[in-house]
Amino acid sequence: MSEVKSGTLFGVGLGPGDPELMTLKAVRVLSSAPVVAHFRKAGRTGHARTIANAHIRTDVVEAAFEYPVTTEIDFREDGYVSAIRDFYEESAAAIVAHLEGGRDVALLCEGDPFFYGSFLHMYDRIKAAHQVMVIPGITGMSGCWTAAQAPITYGDDVMTVLPGTLDEEALTKHLGVADAAVIMKVGHNIEKIKRALSAAGRFDDAIYVERGTMPGERVAKLSDLGECAVPYFSIVLLPGGRGRRIA
Amino acid sequence: MSEVKSGTLFGVGLGPGDPELMTLKAVRVLSSAPVVAHFRKAGRTGHARTIANAHIRTDVVEAAFEYPVTTEIDFREDGYVSAIRDFYEESAAAIVAHLEGGRDVALLCEGDPFFYGSFLHMYDRIKAAHQVMVIPGITGMSGCWTAAQAPITYGDDVMTVLPGTLDEEALTKHLGVADAAVIMKVGHNIEKIKRALSAAGRFDDAIYVERGTMPGERVAKLSDLGECAVPYFSIVLLPGGRGRRIA
Repeated sequence: MSEVKSGTLFGVGLGPGDPELMTLKAVRVLSSAPVVAHFRKAGRTGHARTIANAHIRTDVVEAAFEYPVTTEIDFREDGYVSAIRDFYEESAAAIVAHLEGGRDVALLCEGDPFFYGSFLHMYDRIKAAHQVMVIPGITGMSGCWTAAQAPITYGDDVMTVLPGTLDEEALTKHLGVADAAVIMKVGHNIEKIKRALSAAGRFDDAIYVERGTMPGERVAKLSDLGECAVPYFSIVLLPGGRGRRIA
Repeated sequence: MSEVKSGTLFGVGLGPGDPELMTLKAVRVLSSAPVVAHFRKAGRTGHARTIANAHIRTDVVEAAFEYPVTTEIDFREDGYVSAIRDFYEESAAAIVAHLEGGRDVALLCEGDPFFYGSFLHMYDRIKAAHQVMVIPGITGMSGCWTAAQAPITYGDDVMTVLPGTLDEEALTKHLGVADAAVIMKVGHNIEKIKRALSAAGRFDDAIYVERGTMPGERVAKLSDLGECAVPYFSIVLLPGGRGRRIA
């Protein structure tokens, strides 16, 4: 009976969206992995797959995991938790089947694998029994502050990253003590975020960024945005640099 | 009289230290820029120059700007501010001379150009009169949490980035309300940082990382570190994920 050497799971950070912002290391791993996996919304190509496209081998085995739910259900509801838990279990099992067959798997990750995101749910399930290697990537927020030409932190600035899903009181409290801030997961939280920024006295400094570094990129002063629907993955930036600067 | 088209300043993010974590875009810009500039400690090669080394053309014009002071003088002292202001003025003037001569300049930046760092002092002085293009890079902190195999943020975690130069009370206050935290600029602030983490009830969770993704990389639980001198650019991580996890 021959024993197969278990494969390695690579969490491949792809950066914020511009394919040229992929790292040399990400490209190298993609060029050799026999299996490429990624998460996507049902029926879409998926952002991660699009970013990596030029580097996916034609003979690769692809595994696309389609979210059963996305942002339509509040994550605090039981239906969401149950559906997404089953989904992550099945996705992890599919990856493990490849690893046990001796095949390395490159799991495509938008941004940085260890900074939010679905990769963590695979990492936590797989790392105990299999080798996992993570390749960091440029975060979506770095892509957004670059797109906005907005240096985010100077000198001794404190920067806080806030999910827009927090309640208004928590957002206001955190914004009140940060020099710089990044608010992620904006979507339908936008009006609440505007109120929190106003309450913290920072509304006029805020910048809205959508699809940073990608086609369709949009940058606007938040105060110029008006009332409109915005995507879940848009970002609001509050640049620092109000304190000490060597001018 | 012929008019020379002004060159472009490229702020080239090089990532956390591993040269393979440079982006395709950074490599492309370095392969064509006629002038490469970088900051360094007097008498050293400089981290940025070392990271980029394989991609610097042999016929390039190099400009190395050597800091007149680094961390030996407290930045709140007049001597520091005056010396470093003159230094930044002279460095910017040297870059501008190349731009006015029609030569593009690639300014090497460790990490991400818009996330702390000396590039900002050039950006603020040069952007009004010349074209500046910024290429984001993986931050040093991403390199450190990857090196530590420590996912930094899950789900709705709030993450705060704190300069270790803050006073103990401010550090404690911020650590008390963050799910995840990154403390930069550790150096001689290490004992103060330990006290602040203890006061916030988070000391046992903290991870110390030195030279993340580089030769000589060192990762340790902060509580195992003992009293010792550590470099200025080391980082302390407080991973998130204590709250909601879909397990």
